[in-house]
Amino acid sequence: MSPNNNQVPFKGYAVTNPKAWSDFDVITFKPKNFEDTDVEIAITHCGVCGSDLHTITSGWGDIEPPLIVGHEIIGKATRVGKAVEGIKVGDRVGVGAQIGSCMDCEACKTNNEQYCPKGIDTYNAEYPDGVKTMGGYSTAIRADERFVFPIPEAIESKYAASMLCAGLTVYSPLIRNGCGAGKKVGIVGIGGLGHYAILFAKALAAEVYAFTHSDNKSDEIKKMGADHVVLTDKDGEFAKPLVQKLHLIISTRDVAEDFPIVPYLSMLWVQGRLIQVGLPDHPFPPIPGFAFTSNGSLFGGSKIGSKKEVLDMLKLAVDKSIKPWIEELPMSKAREAVERLKKNDVRYRFVLTQDLL
Amino acid sequence: MSPNNNQVPFKGYAVTNPKAWSDFDVITFKPKNFEDTDVEIAITHCGVCGSDLHTITSGWGDIEPPLIVGHEIIGKATRVGKAVEGIKVGDRVGVGAQIGSCMDCEACKTNNEQYCPKGIDTYNAEYPDGVKTMGGYSTAIRADERFVFPIPEAIESKYAASMLCAGLTVYSPLIRNGCGAGKKVGIVGIGGLGHYAILFAKALAAEVYAFTHSDNKSDEIKKMGADHVVLTDKDGEFAKPLVQKLHLIISTRDVAEDFPIVPYLSMLWVQGRLIQVGLPDHPFPPIPGFAFTSNGSLFGGSKIGSKKEVLDMLKLAVDKSIKPWIEELPMSKAREAVERLKKNDVRYRFVLTQDLL
Repeated sequence: MSPNNNQVPFKGYAVTNPKAWSDFDVITFKPKNFEDTDVEIAITHCGVCGSDLHTITSGWGDIEPPLIVGHEIIGKATRVGKAVEGIKVGDRVGVGAQIGSCMDCEACKTNNEQYCPKGIDTYNAEYPDGVKTMGGYSTAIRADERFVFPIPEAIESKYAASMLCAGLTVYSPLIRNGCGAGKKVGIVGIGGLGHYAILFAKALAAEVYAFTHSDNKSDEIKKMGADHVVLTDKDGEFAKPLVQKLHLIISTRDVAEDFPIVPYLSMLWVQGRLIQVGLPDHPFPPIPGFAFTSNGSLFGGSKIGSKKEVLDMLKLAVDKSIKPWIEELPMSKAREAVERLKKNDVRYRFVLTQDLL
Repeated sequence: MSPNNNQVPFKGYAVTNPKAWSDFDVITFKPKNFEDTDVEIAITHCGVCGSDLHTITSGWGDIEPPLIVGHEIIGKATRVGKAVEGIKVGDRVGVGAQIGSCMDCEACKTNNEQYCPKGIDTYNAEYPDGVKTMGGYSTAIRADERFVFPIPEAIESKYAASMLCAGLTVYSPLIRNGCGAGKKVGIVGIGGLGHYAILFAKALAAEVYAFTHSDNKSDEIKKMGADHVVLTDKDGEFAKPLVQKLHLIISTRDVAEDFPIVPYLSMLWVQGRLIQVGLPDHPFPPIPGFAFTSNGSLFGGSKIGSKKEVLDMLKLAVDKSIKPWIEELPMSKAREAVERLKKNDVRYRFVLTQDLL
């Protein structure tokens, strides 16, 4: 076991009143028990995810304050359990949206630990020892090595941070659903997740169709590498020229209402898939049976990714020099970040930098 | 071109008043122009499909009478166009739910003609020459060779009939979604389609879980070969012991209301698929975003199958001596058949036999 001489205090920016969801107060908190398989990390950066917003606005359910959110974490390993094999004190590492799993089920044993029925979220959940999980708008975090990712030297921390949730959330379904050379891939909604989806789908050699309702993003979307920009409408007229043309669509839409699912499905080639990675507060509009019959298409979801996928994604990012489009803010400006995110006023991801240490 | 000395009159049992949907009147009708690629068939048997019922009850939209339904057709080739290569006069042949396509699009060229955007239904549609398509509760039908299937000698006509829609509708998604040895496959709703799904999934060496709300069918379902019979409830309690256990679920449910989609999805292994092959009159209940996140599952559809799949299915039926469970009625008793089908009072498929010739 490494000595704990670099230990940092555990404190962070917490929501303390769910009704004042953008008020953050600095609190101290109790970390989980330190286990032999754990790594303790002094946080330097944390991305601001849509999940943070859904959580603090109680869109996904009531929360119990105080709660520190944030699950796109980069920092330095300050303490390493004696059973940890791949990480040393001083290493630059990251943590994403998952901080635990049973390690023993079929999912955990097949690089599908994100689907472990006993998976533990990085915040607003509980470690097995009963301690509440607290996220990365904070000074430090402890996690089992399986959920700690070494960050390649070639990727700056400010760029690596949001890869660990936003990037992974689109990388995993791209890989698992056949994105690659010769494939036409649609990306719906060009925000934090969508812009990553364009970057990765292009890096994987697909032809990319970006779907957006924001005409004023077109130039930027092309700069990200999209081959085609399609302006959407609620009635689905946009889909007609593309019937049966796309092999895969990744939807990052964060709002279910008015989602023109049938037009999106109609654009898919036979057995093509519409994969929804945003997790809206409300259910999707009712789907008629005939929505799937013109092409045998499928509508499904995906949840972050496995450690193996994180490592593959980071390697791809190095190989293809992928840089996300981000805005940096000091962590004390978390309020500004979440309030602007709520208005979709971010291009394309906020990354908070440590200012409590 | 073969001589037309066996030509039969074109007449059949038609719905003439949509409000009296189970009243059938014998009418004569005009067939399509006979083309060089066509086969004319004297019909001996026609299965009674749920589609017939949806159509004549106007559940899928208004119909224009008179209309003859039926698309599980077996008969003898009585006339064969000079460009037809695989069928001779006198051959026993069948026609399913599709009677035309463009023959030229990507779907048609890749054994996916059921997804051709210009596909033509066997009834309640129009041939390219403008003639209305009329189904198999009738004496005769004309179809392009691509939509006419030679029936292997080992399969009796009464057994072959319903394979051409009910059988194919479940065979295609089983094949396309990985049913086979080592796979656990769920079948929802054990009626005409569902009983075929059990027969074929077992023939393909899967472990079969049959889901039914009819306790009184359990013994028969086991006789069909299902390994497990699961009694369902509206609240989805039945799903809990099977979370993440199934690789594929084929749902033949014909009613969308109260469909516990979330519990069904929860039973799927990572990236497993729930394939809906029934086509209910009404949309499915709204699906919450989290329905897919526990396993990255997919909800999709399927539409009949290709000619290649018909031929493969018939070969499997011969190899494994598959016999559907049917009830035969003379065609003049079409009223009884559709009225009993509406009450789910059939085990498990009606087949009408010719009595107009």
